Formats: sequence, C-alpha cells, structure tokens
Amino acid sequence: MSFTAAVLTVSDSVHEGTRQDRSGPAVRQRLESAGWRVPRLDVLPDEPGQIAAHLTNLADSGEVSAIFTTGGTGLAARDRTPEATRQVIEREIPGIGEKMRAAGRTKTPLADLSRGLAGTRGRTVIVNLPGSPKGAVESLDAILDIVPHVVDLLCGRTDHPAGLQRD
Amino acid sequence: MSFTAAVLTVSDSVHEGTRQDRSGPAVRQRLESAGWRVPRLDVLPDEPGQIAAHLTNLADSGEVSAIFTTGGTGLAARDRTPEATRQVIEREIPGIGEKMRAAGRTKTPLADLSRGLAGTRGRTVIVNLPGSPKGAVESLDAILDIVPHVVDLLCGRTDHPAGLQRD
Amino acid sequence: MSFTAAVLTVSDSVHEGTRQDRSGPAVRQRLESAGWRVPRLDVLPDEPGQIAAHLTNLADSGEVSAIFTTGGTGLAARDRTPEATRQVIEREIPGIGEKMRAAGRTKTPLADLSRGLAGTRGRTVIVNLPGSPKGAVESLDAILDIVPHVVDLLCGRTDHPAGLQRD
Repeated sequence: MSFTAAVLTVSDSVHEGTRQDRSGPAVRQRLESAGWRVPRLDVLPDEPGQIAAHLTNLADSGEVSAIFTTGGTGLAARDRTPEATRQVIEREIPGIGEKMRAAGRTKTPLADLSRGLAGTRGRTVIVNLPGSPKGAVESLDAILDIVPHVVDLLCGRTDHPAGLQRD
Repeated sequence: MSFTAAVLTVSDSVHEGTRQDRSGPAVRQRLESAGWRVPRLDVLPDEPGQIAAHLTNLADSGEVSAIFTTGGTGLAARDRTPEATRQVIEREIPGIGEKMRAAGRTKTPLADLSRGLAGTRGRTVIVNLPGSPKGAVESLDAILDIVPHVVDLLCGRTDHPAGLQRD
Repeated sequence: MSFTAAVLTVSDSVHEGTRQDRSGPAVRQRLESAGWRVPRLDVLPDEPGQIAAHLTNLADSGEVSAIFTTGGTGLAARDRTPEATRQVIEREIPGIGEKMRAAGRTKTPLADLSRGLAGTRGRTVIVNLPGSPKGAVESLDAILDIVPHVVDLLCGRTDHPAGLQRD
C-alpha cells in the first residue's frame, strides 16, 4: 500500500525568497525513497495563524494521510510551529516528539531544543520536524517506521504490521 | 504496608461482551503479585465522559490509592482515555508516561504510539496503561517500583523508600 | 560572553526559616563554576500565585537571561512549581524536562517523579529543577550545555556554538 503525505516548509526567509528551501525537498525525498507519494510541498512564513489554517484545510480535505512540517520548532523569536500545530490537533502523540528527541540526543545536545510535537486531526497525522535539513531527515528517520501504522489506525485498519507486533 | 488499587478496562468490545477482557485481569494479577490489594476491576466503553466521571468518583471516594486504566491510549477512532484522564487530573506526572514509552521502545517501535499519561487527583494517582495484555503489563512493570512512592507523597509520607534515595 | 541567571528556591520551610536552603546555593555555585553570573537568589513559599508573579516580574524586567527554580516539582500536597511556571511561559521546551528525567533515570527511579518543565517568556528561559540539592545539581548538569544556546536564540544570535553544530 502507498501512503500519501504533504510537506510544509515553515520559514520567513524561504517564503520571502531570500533563502533556498533545502529542508522541504530533503524531507520529500526521504519520504519518497521510503515509498510515500508526496504530491504537495508548500511554503509558509512563521505565522501561526497561516500555519494553523493550512494544516486544518489540508487535514480536513482528506487529500493526504500525513503532513510533515519542517521549521519553526526552535526558539528564535518567530518559531511558533508547535503552538500553531497544537491549536489544530485533536489528539497528541507525545511519544513521537519524545522519540525524535531521544534519537537526536545521541547526535547533538541541540536536539532537545526542537520543540516539535505530533498529533492527529481526523484521519490525518501531523508531525513537526526541525528546520535544518539534517535535523529534519534524522528526526524523520527516527519515526518513519511507525507513521504508516498511525495512518492504518486512523483509517480503522487495526492489524499490526509484521515485525511490529506487541502481543 | 499494603497499597490498594482499582483497575479500569476501557474497551467498547469488552463492555458489549463481544470480547473477553484479558488486560484488566492481567494488570490486577501483576499488581497483586507485587503486594497490592485490588478490590475493583471495572469495565467501561470508550466514552470519555463516562471514563472521566468514573475516575473522578473513584478518586474522590478515597477508596483506592491508585487507579490503573488499560485501553484507549492508542489511535483508533474512539481511543480517548488520555483525553478523559487529562480532564480530571490536577497535576500531571510526565515522567511516568515518558518512562513507560522509553522502556517499551526497547521492545517495539509501537510503544511510542501509546499516548498514556499519569497524574494525581487529590490523594489518588491515575496511570493510563496500553490496551494489550502484554503492553499493559510491560508498561506497568516499568513504573511499578515508583508508584508506591507517589502514594506516600500524596499522603504526606515524605521519607523516601530504601533503595530509592536521591540524596 | 557571560550569562546572567537568577535562582529561585521554592520551599515553605526555607521561607519560614525552619530549614536551611541548601539547594539554591548549590545551584548558584554550579552555575558560577560554569561561568554564569548569578546576582539573585530568592526564596518563596509553595504558593503558585507568588511563584508566577515572581517569574513574570523577573522575566519581564530583562534583568537575567535565565531563571532556575529549585523545589516544588514533586508530589507533596503543596508542590505546584510546574503549574505556576506553565501559567507564565509562552513556549514550552519539552526536551529539557525529558532530558533531565532521562539523565536522572540512570541514577534513581525517583527522577521520573520530578515534574519539572522549561519554557520561555520573552527573552528569558525558565527551568524547574528538583528540590533536593543533589537532584537539582544533577538535573542542571544534564542541561547546562544547552541553556546558553537557548539564550542566544532568544536574543537573535542564531549561530550555533562550536561543538553543537547539527549541520
């Protein structure tokens, strides 16, 4: 089965055209190499209202099973992607943020400053990845094996994938 | 000293009688083997309002020191036990959920999808365990040594148990 | 560059003068040995309203880059420092609490009962440390290398410090 995702780059400078987006394409490429279809890569500035509206519209459209954001998870003045995400999710999945940071901690202490969260809205899972290309892909790698299972559960498919059985 | 706990199984199918409850009895047995008294094992459907009312009444009755729920922590459409629990706790204990997932992560990546939380209401501690018998007991094992200490603190006994001294 | 911090001891008994403050001075000493200036060490009782007002005034004064609290993160009846802190922060940094507990877990299971959180208000970062001198200093040690980077980001200095590069 193929899964469909959207990528959202959150960055004032990319949105203004003063910096090239390297993170969004890196996330899309990693997803595609894992067998996902990624029909959308959008760019927004660090505006929580715009981010929340985009996530809401995209999740409610049913167009994609997952939305991966990159950027705005840190502590620069305008970094507010987690706050915007929290506004629109219905159920948080704390283990996804914990796992991304636990994995990142083995690479750099800075991983603990990524405030990314994950949660669901309807049948769509939303995951915040860090803004640097390397951080975004490493965080994605840490959780990529479980996201399809989230999608399955959201769609009512409750058989656990082979190799991930708990009992 | 003996501690007293209630177990609450949250499951539509167990409540309807179409599936046998294996998780609640497994949790009760594990608690009893650790010296807890478990006078109650209740079953509720995945209805957040009923779950929240049950947790509130039981905590406020003073009947038990701890309530362990099993079920409803995942991402199926009706899994809302953490949301119901959050409504009624006064103080969250984030380390308990983190510890259960960190321990589970060494067994299966799916542990990160258990959204269970823990917190206190009055002198009662409430802990969400996953819904599978194996996941529930493994999560319980990860935190069973510290729950009596929570109960002690809630009752004003601040001497740390032997072997758990911090300083 | 030198960083400036305030320490806040939260303890009814220290505030009443019936117990000596060992944790606040231990935290100050550890910060100073790491090159921080610590012009303030205040003491408050376990009163969430007073704690929240103090944190707000101090953060908004611009006097210090960081505030480290010690005490009130546990589960005794009046332990409410995290709840008071949550009221005043604008952005939470979940990785700091997670990291402190993950590090503490290797020393004592009781570390998971420390409910401390961290977050930012304006350009000030606020971190809750446990109340015991040993727990406070061990938790501080776990995150001391990344706090200067938080301060840099809050002040618009986005160059990553040497040795902490992510990409």
